[in-house]
Amino acid sequence: MLLQKTLLEKIEGPQDLKNLSPEELLQVSTEARQALLEKISSHGGHNGPNLGVVEMTVALHYVFDSPRDKFIFDVSHQSYIHKMLTGRMQAFTDAAHYDDFSGYTNPKESEHDLFTVGHTSTSLSLANGVAKARDLKNENSNVVAVIGDGSLSGGLAYEGLNNIVEQGTNTIVIVNDNDQSIADNFGGLYGNLKALRESNGQVENNFFKALGFDYYYLNDGNDLTALISLFETVKDVNHPVLLHIHTVKGKGFKFAEENREQFHAGGPFSLTTGEYLGSGNHPATYSSVTAEFLLEKMAKDPKIVAINAGTPMLLFNQAQRQQAGKQFVDVGIAEEQAATMTAGLAKNGAKPVWAVYSTFMQRSYDQISHDLALNDLPGTILVYGASVNSMNDESHLGIFDIPFLSHIPNLVYLAPTNKEEYLAMLDWSLEQTNHPVAIRVPVGDLIETGKKDVTDYSQLFKNQVVAKGSKVALIGVGNFYSLAEKVAADLKEKLDLQSTLINPKFISGLDTELLDSLKENHQVVVTLEDGILDGGYGQTIASYLGDSDLHIQNYGLEKAFHDRFEATELLADSGLTTDQIVRKILAKI
Amino acid sequence: MLLQKTLLEKIEGPQDLKNLSPEELLQVSTEARQALLEKISSHGGHNGPNLGVVEMTVALHYVFDSPRDKFIFDVSHQSYIHKMLTGRMQAFTDAAHYDDFSGYTNPKESEHDLFTVGHTSTSLSLANGVAKARDLKNENSNVVAVIGDGSLSGGLAYEGLNNIVEQGTNTIVIVNDNDQSIADNFGGLYGNLKALRESNGQVENNFFKALGFDYYYLNDGNDLTALISLFETVKDVNHPVLLHIHTVKGKGFKFAEENREQFHAGGPFSLTTGEYLGSGNHPATYSSVTAEFLLEKMAKDPKIVAINAGTPMLLFNQAQRQQAGKQFVDVGIAEEQAATMTAGLAKNGAKPVWAVYSTFMQRSYDQISHDLALNDLPGTILVYGASVNSMNDESHLGIFDIPFLSHIPNLVYLAPTNKEEYLAMLDWSLEQTNHPVAIRVPVGDLIETGKKDVTDYSQLFKNQVVAKGSKVALIGVGNFYSLAEKVAADLKEKLDLQSTLINPKFISGLDTELLDSLKENHQVVVTLEDGILDGGYGQTIASYLGDSDLHIQNYGLEKAFHDRFEATELLADSGLTTDQIVRKILAKI
Repeated sequence: MLLQKTLLEKIEGPQDLKNLSPEELLQVSTEARQALLEKISSHGGHNGPNLGVVEMTVALHYVFDSPRDKFIFDVSHQSYIHKMLTGRMQAFTDAAHYDDFSGYTNPKESEHDLFTVGHTSTSLSLANGVAKARDLKNENSNVVAVIGDGSLSGGLAYEGLNNIVEQGTNTIVIVNDNDQSIADNFGGLYGNLKALRESNGQVENNFFKALGFDYYYLNDGNDLTALISLFETVKDVNHPVLLHIHTVKGKGFKFAEENREQFHAGGPFSLTTGEYLGSGNHPATYSSVTAEFLLEKMAKDPKIVAINAGTPMLLFNQAQRQQAGKQFVDVGIAEEQAATMTAGLAKNGAKPVWAVYSTFMQRSYDQISHDLALNDLPGTILVYGASVNSMNDESHLGIFDIPFLSHIPNLVYLAPTNKEEYLAMLDWSLEQTNHPVAIRVPVGDLIETGKKDVTDYSQLFKNQVVAKGSKVALIGVGNFYSLAEKVAADLKEKLDLQSTLINPKFISGLDTELLDSLKENHQVVVTLEDGILDGGYGQTIASYLGDSDLHIQNYGLEKAFHDRFEATELLADSGLTTDQIVRKILAKI
Repeated sequence: MLLQKTLLEKIEGPQDLKNLSPEELLQVSTEARQALLEKISSHGGHNGPNLGVVEMTVALHYVFDSPRDKFIFDVSHQSYIHKMLTGRMQAFTDAAHYDDFSGYTNPKESEHDLFTVGHTSTSLSLANGVAKARDLKNENSNVVAVIGDGSLSGGLAYEGLNNIVEQGTNTIVIVNDNDQSIADNFGGLYGNLKALRESNGQVENNFFKALGFDYYYLNDGNDLTALISLFETVKDVNHPVLLHIHTVKGKGFKFAEENREQFHAGGPFSLTTGEYLGSGNHPATYSSVTAEFLLEKMAKDPKIVAINAGTPMLLFNQAQRQQAGKQFVDVGIAEEQAATMTAGLAKNGAKPVWAVYSTFMQRSYDQISHDLALNDLPGTILVYGASVNSMNDESHLGIFDIPFLSHIPNLVYLAPTNKEEYLAMLDWSLEQTNHPVAIRVPVGDLIETGKKDVTDYSQLFKNQVVAKGSKVALIGVGNFYSLAEKVAADLKEKLDLQSTLINPKFISGLDTELLDSLKENHQVVVTLEDGILDGGYGQTIASYLGDSDLHIQNYGLEKAFHDRFEATELLADSGLTTDQIVRKILAKI
């Protein structure tokens, strides 16, 4: 440990802050930042956002009275200091306990955490509901929402602002403006925020005042005394107020202040050099081959344009974004805009490709359905992180996209199993003009066949029969195709049984001719998919073949918000190991 | 016909407007309004919105050059005059052709219609994409989006505004401000719009200027000359402009101007008295019993609060809204806000019930999943219009909610089959504190059993076995339970077969004990659901029983954006008549 964190470690709850002197509160802040740096540098996490709100969080808990007063943190990736101050200190001061708590607020952990949150822009609407409930119960308490400037690009945040003003009672909106989203901010609002920062809150047209807020600006949002004074001014206010607080992202750690995008979040890094550990050359990944492929295509075709909503590093690093130039658009954290803009682009003859995480794509269900699919426009969606082997926080799961996406009419959803197949699908999708196409970008190590994929993907829903066999047909979807291969190998080894091995490629429609043919000399049809079972691909096959004499076995995950799991354990618990699958097959042949 | 529409009927396309004199253009406007009134009074449609934009639409087509210049109408319910002027006159001047065209823009009808649209707040993001594609292709044309003040409450509209400013090139946003959404407007923005109207566009904090728009205000938005002049001013502009145009909703028809909510849309009405034909006393409906039930509960429990997003008449008429007082909240057309606010309300001890059409609910998939369901909060969602027998425009279908809603973890989705069951479910949902609950409000005539439903709904996923039989089990979901009854009766009559008749009640989970028991003395399990088959309830049953010897037959609609269909025809085409079903069952027993 770098410091004796004596004062900090005495804080068992917000009450312990109340009798501290200004100097002691400052000491708590200093020690908290130090503890934070120690943890994140060795453990990883959301760096910049938490470093920037140390003083704000101390001031909030000093002035307000949680849990009577209600704090709601947008995304809640900036709640580490809040956790320290609300009985979860050990998770920051004792390396053995670093993983005791989630990286987001979580009501199961503490009464000071109101919501499990992980997506952006929700805090204001949540606060609006919490405040309305307070009013209906004729209670008095402060409702405080903390939202970053980056999260303000999401439409839901605007809906929340509108409705907070309409409601008209106590709601304190804190805009934590560090002039940075995950990456840069984009959108007209940010011109206004900049003008407000540069004028100490005085501009001719103030966005927040225009919406009806009682507006306060604080330029040094890392000044503990000023923060306390501001919060005391608005505490118990009887109407909505908006505190525009300018903080420094990454405050107190030079490298994070200087490289705000890199230090938004990440793995362990050196406190002395600011280098991420394990950085350096990496083998090619599905992300890197996507970027290379697209940049090459873009150079040849100015109509190709990549879209992203606030997570550009998913697709392109900073240099690649510069290279793409006007052929790359970051719309801010605004997935609905990304989807609907994709429709507009496709309609007017561009070739848009929107890269999005599975978990965030669900924020634009209607835009994909009503704007892109109803109009049957040729936009491409690259669905990243759609796997049990991707992010494993309950708020960031990539296991629901087959149920919500694949049943949207007109949309073609593809699940490649290796690099060549993936790029062939992407190339086809960009060049075809008939339908919206989503591609479930494989998760895991890059698999290369070394053989160009010459499949004609315009033959929709045509599955690939990799091996023809009898008795058992194995349909392995995307990432789980390799599991199907293993099951096939095991059946071969144990029973000398040649099963039929199918790579369906398409998961938004069935190869009915192939499925019908299985009735002849098969007894069991097995589907394997990397997502929840309910509403999934396998169930469409169970339904299609339900009236036949075939036995259908669908494998996938249980419908649940699985949280911080080990993928291999969860898969074993879900019956998704080769052994378990083979045993169930053997029971039927 | 009330007038000789000689001039109007000569307009075969926008080109025919170009050489008209100002007086002639005015005559076209007058005749267009007259034709419009004749049609909507005898046929029904969106009344107020179209009456208000007669002059604006004539001016747009006079000044701009469609289809080279691109018009995008938000919701596109106000596109009737546009249709008249772009080759579809007959649908407004000849009663025999009134149904030739859709009530929304539709690219299949005309090159002047860019998108099939029916949901709000999408036009700006679409325009942003269209303009970006134009820029990528180095073309020149004006991109013009027309959006009503009501549609500005949706977060996507704000995302669109932000991104149009960011893009910085020609995009002309027309805010058609008639000071009215479908019903009243709600939200902080509307204070700003009011101040702008009252100050002729001069206020201290201008929302649109704050976002970076070059802003123009026109107070008499039904003044054709002023409109033409304004449009000529901004035509071919090289940056984003926003034209705030104040129009009169229902302009030119006294009753519509006076009763803006009633005349937003509706069936045939009298031109002389302004009375809707067939208005008067109606038998009770599922809507009316819901309102009565909720108002009675609310009077006893101040914690019950009804939420709606811009379609309040779905739940309460104007008098009932007044009666509900603070226990009713209209959040504007902002379904995401409605869902997330519901979560906030439930968290803080209120009992929220959110009423929403199935087709609009899909605009809040992530909010239902990430805010309400992940937090497992006891909010109630009343899902209206979820049936093939509800709205039948391709943009307004209520047949997708089982696939997208029922597979969200934690959420309990219920499908009642009659009034008593429905109200028992609603009552249970409001009083329980464990889970979010959605109820698929039945569609069709009110079915009353006269017997109180005493089911304990806290026994999740427990199905009701209405009749115990053998060989055939019929599972009729919600609205289609009556179809299952008919099939049962037919089997009884034709074969003297007593089938097992099941009302599943729950559609987000299975009664596995019951399903397992069917293996004993049944051969065929039939599921019937009022929605698309793919991703639906029946497929979860096909999957669960897939490995058994039972034959499973799932009945539902084909996955497609069915458009302006006759429900009985579509059902017959989908194999959903009693005869067709019985025949398929007989083939297996």
